Amino acid sequence: MKDDNFGEWYSEVVVNGEMIEYHDISGCYILRPWAMSIWEVMQTFFDAEIKKMKIKNCYFSLFVSSGVLQKEKDHIEGFAPEVAWMTKAGDSDLEMPIAIRPTSETVMYPYFSERIRELGDLPLRLNQWCNVVRWEFSNPTPFIRSREFLWQEGHTAFATKEEADTEVLDILELYRRIYEEFLAVPVIKGKKSEHEKFAGGLYTTTVEAFVSNTGRGVQGATSHCLGQNFAEMFQINFETEEGEESMVWQNSWAYTTRTIGVMIMVHGDDKGLVMPPKVASVQVIVIPVPYKDANSQGIFDACAATVKSLEEAGIRAEADYRDNYSPGWKYSQWELKGVLLRIEIGPKDLANNQVRAVQRDNSAKIDIPMADLTERVKEMLNNIQQNMFDVAKEKRDACIQVVHTWEQFVEALAQKKMILAPWCDEEKDVKARTKGDMGAAKSLCSPFQQPELPEGTKCFASGKPAKKWTYWGRRY
Amino acid sequence: MKDDNFGEWYSEVVVNGEMIEYHDISGCYILRPWAMSIWEVMQTFFDAEIKKMKIKNCYFSLFVSSGVLQKEKDHIEGFAPEVAWMTKAGDSDLEMPIAIRPTSETVMYPYFSERIRELGDLPLRLNQWCNVVRWEFSNPTPFIRSREFLWQEGHTAFATKEEADTEVLDILELYRRIYEEFLAVPVIKGKKSEHEKFAGGLYTTTVEAFVSNTGRGVQGATSHCLGQNFAEMFQINFETEEGEESMVWQNSWAYTTRTIGVMIMVHGDDKGLVMPPKVASVQVIVIPVPYKDANSQGIFDACAATVKSLEEAGIRAEADYRDNYSPGWKYSQWELKGVLLRIEIGPKDLANNQVRAVQRDNSAKIDIPMADLTERVKEMLNNIQQNMFDVAKEKRDACIQVVHTWEQFVEALAQKKMILAPWCDEEKDVKARTKGDMGAAKSLCSPFQQPELPEGTKCFASGKPAKKWTYWGRRY
Repeated sequence: MKDDNFGEWYSEVVVNGEMIEYHDISGCYILRPWAMSIWEVMQTFFDAEIKKMKIKNCYFSLFVSSGVLQKEKDHIEGFAPEVAWMTKAGDSDLEMPIAIRPTSETVMYPYFSERIRELGDLPLRLNQWCNVVRWEFSNPTPFIRSREFLWQEGHTAFATKEEADTEVLDILELYRRIYEEFLAVPVIKGKKSEHEKFAGGLYTTTVEAFVSNTGRGVQGATSHCLGQNFAEMFQINFETEEGEESMVWQNSWAYTTRTIGVMIMVHGDDKGLVMPPKVASVQVIVIPVPYKDANSQGIFDACAATVKSLEEAGIRAEADYRDNYSPGWKYSQWELKGVLLRIEIGPKDLANNQVRAVQRDNSAKIDIPMADLTERVKEMLNNIQQNMFDVAKEKRDACIQVVHTWEQFVEALAQKKMILAPWCDEEKDVKARTKGDMGAAKSLCSPFQQPELPEGTKCFASGKPAKKWTYWGRRY
Repeated sequence: MKDDNFGEWYSEVVVNGEMIEYHDISGCYILRPWAMSIWEVMQTFFDAEIKKMKIKNCYFSLFVSSGVLQKEKDHIEGFAPEVAWMTKAGDSDLEMPIAIRPTSETVMYPYFSERIRELGDLPLRLNQWCNVVRWEFSNPTPFIRSREFLWQEGHTAFATKEEADTEVLDILELYRRIYEEFLAVPVIKGKKSEHEKFAGGLYTTTVEAFVSNTGRGVQGATSHCLGQNFAEMFQINFETEEGEESMVWQNSWAYTTRTIGVMIMVHGDDKGLVMPPKVASVQVIVIPVPYKDANSQGIFDACAATVKSLEEAGIRAEADYRDNYSPGWKYSQWELKGVLLRIEIGPKDLANNQVRAVQRDNSAKIDIPMADLTERVKEMLNNIQQNMFDVAKEKRDACIQVVHTWEQFVEALAQKKMILAPWCDEEKDVKARTKGDMGAAKSLCSPFQQPELPEGTKCFASGKPAKKWTYWGRRY
């Protein structure tokens, strides 16, 4: 049960819901078609949006030479413990170990340095869809924390900080839309603290989700302004109109297959997965319900006609004709897989030229005349999608707790809250003071939408003057 | 020059044409947007086609444990010398080295074994788009032979050999269409010899291209029937309707970024790349040609209007407004990048409400009234695409030479021909007898379309009775 033992529930639902299969190498997972199709829906959306922004796709190497990897000191410090190394090919040892990309800043920026010479070469805006490897040693969790994962990574360079700043937020808005419009998961947009920002970057913006069952925040996706740190290390310069040498301003941004895990954690229930219609590769499952004496062929034909009508209206529908399973077994199976709208067609429906629509979320059963089919189904799917978001938001909002003092903070943490607190902007202390079995509390983000901070407000942790409101909690 | 020093020409054209940038790790290349967009066009086509066939996308791991990799003996023998090994993560040595996938049979088939139990689980038809690594030590060549490359790999399992056989050919037909309809490269469909087939498979079908400048065949893409070899090793069984345990029949099939290299080799010329319109991300380049006293803004507006009209008609068009380059420089630049149709708009065109269209292939210049723009451009692009294929086919056909004796064979090989010869089906001897600086001759394929083989025809190599006509040549 999700509420009783969340970890066990999650491990089971990702496997039984046909999302994941375990691989024989720990921390690596197989993405089955049911998961992959969600990724593809998001990819289609995001790829089209960035192409509108004139960002172009490319493909860089999986491999990074160790010299290049170590060029940006803070960056390599952040990633070194998790870097996977290739040292051998066939029977031969390599002269120098080669790193497998944990992220591609150091793979791409020698190219940026080579290709950027003058103002006309800017902006340079690239993106790639690929796999990356971070060999983490603790707590592998399907989608949320895996040693290899899929992502897109955008890498861009501009002549001015203003342009870079603007792009950071344009991309963050796309990430918000992926979570809120597609996955029906509410997120908070904000800025990461200095301690939690991307290693080697200037500042990091994030969309933060929250899993109410575990009381943990999740960094949903991040859009970084790298400033000029990498430009300096990799000598990415251009000649200004005045003929002066100037460093570029860079961004990098990424979202990963983690998105799918967040969706499962937020929406799944004791019956299994719950798939927001916008990302489900099957939005409507059509199930024939023949009776022994009834006109089976007529029912099968009606199912096929129903699927055809729905597909022609742009709705992703499928019929389950398997004859070695009962309708009841199929109902459970598709509920487990998270399909939210089921259409049943039996002899009575056939006779009345109607179908029976059953919603997974509230078990509402409605008879729909065939003539109204596509219109009504569209409406139901839209309502389901909106309702999922509303319910998730209500749940998330109920977890948010405003605190002003350390005592309140500790209590809210024990209650698994997403804590909003006035903060002085100095971090390490909080982490140390909350260490324990459940893991330390960390800052999640300082929301862009800041509540009022009255003059004289004190930091919840240090008692010093507070500079901003910041979200805190345990997190994945 | 392409005809004088092909190798040098190729290395330069892939870089200057903005396809490739060299990576600091030898044998690894960066695919720039100009190359990536070709890959994406082919991917969109192929992905939609296999989805119609109910093949589903998934994603398996980059990593293979060494035990699993070695399960199929012939298979591992074929790949072992090129396998890249990961042995270290952070500062820690792994207990057992982990292989980076050179192909995914051994990664996927434990899953097939797990998921296939009964007839209802079949067919199981999966595909993934991913990177693979084969650490070759000789002759890295951009696109054609690189240590990491992108591909799709399909892996399917059926209850019967007939179903598997049918799919092998359905997929091969898609590969033919990629080459002939998209890349305008003629290919020959056929079967690989026993010696050249996929390691561990039953038989391999192929589309073979030919580069007339170098007189070398290229294995364009392959569709393998694996038979039951892997099914036996990985215990992929199902229960038949009669309640008996039976092994599945499997296929695997792939095409790679090599396709792009073949396109460049076949079509490129001394001016640079030549991009078939169907895969070019810019099919028409629009260039303003202002004169000093002329109405520059009017010309720029006309360019923008032209791009808009073309785009609305589904034609991929772009205008090059850069004011620090002359029109002449831009002409060369876009010719180098291989765009085959250029539209120039100058003061006279503006006055006459027309554009001037210039074809890269024959330098034909035509004035097109704006009213006829999209229709005429569509027609020109179609003609260019067809003409590219026709020219390439004529060239390729001129290289095909039928031989009957070893003397004729050696002479044809010296003349860089694609040799069609009656053959006894025993291979090793030919390779050994043709070893030399240029590389040995190998069998390319036995074409499905067999010329008549009169009774008593002798093998060109052994003098034994010939069993079939087979193509031979040096190859990439």
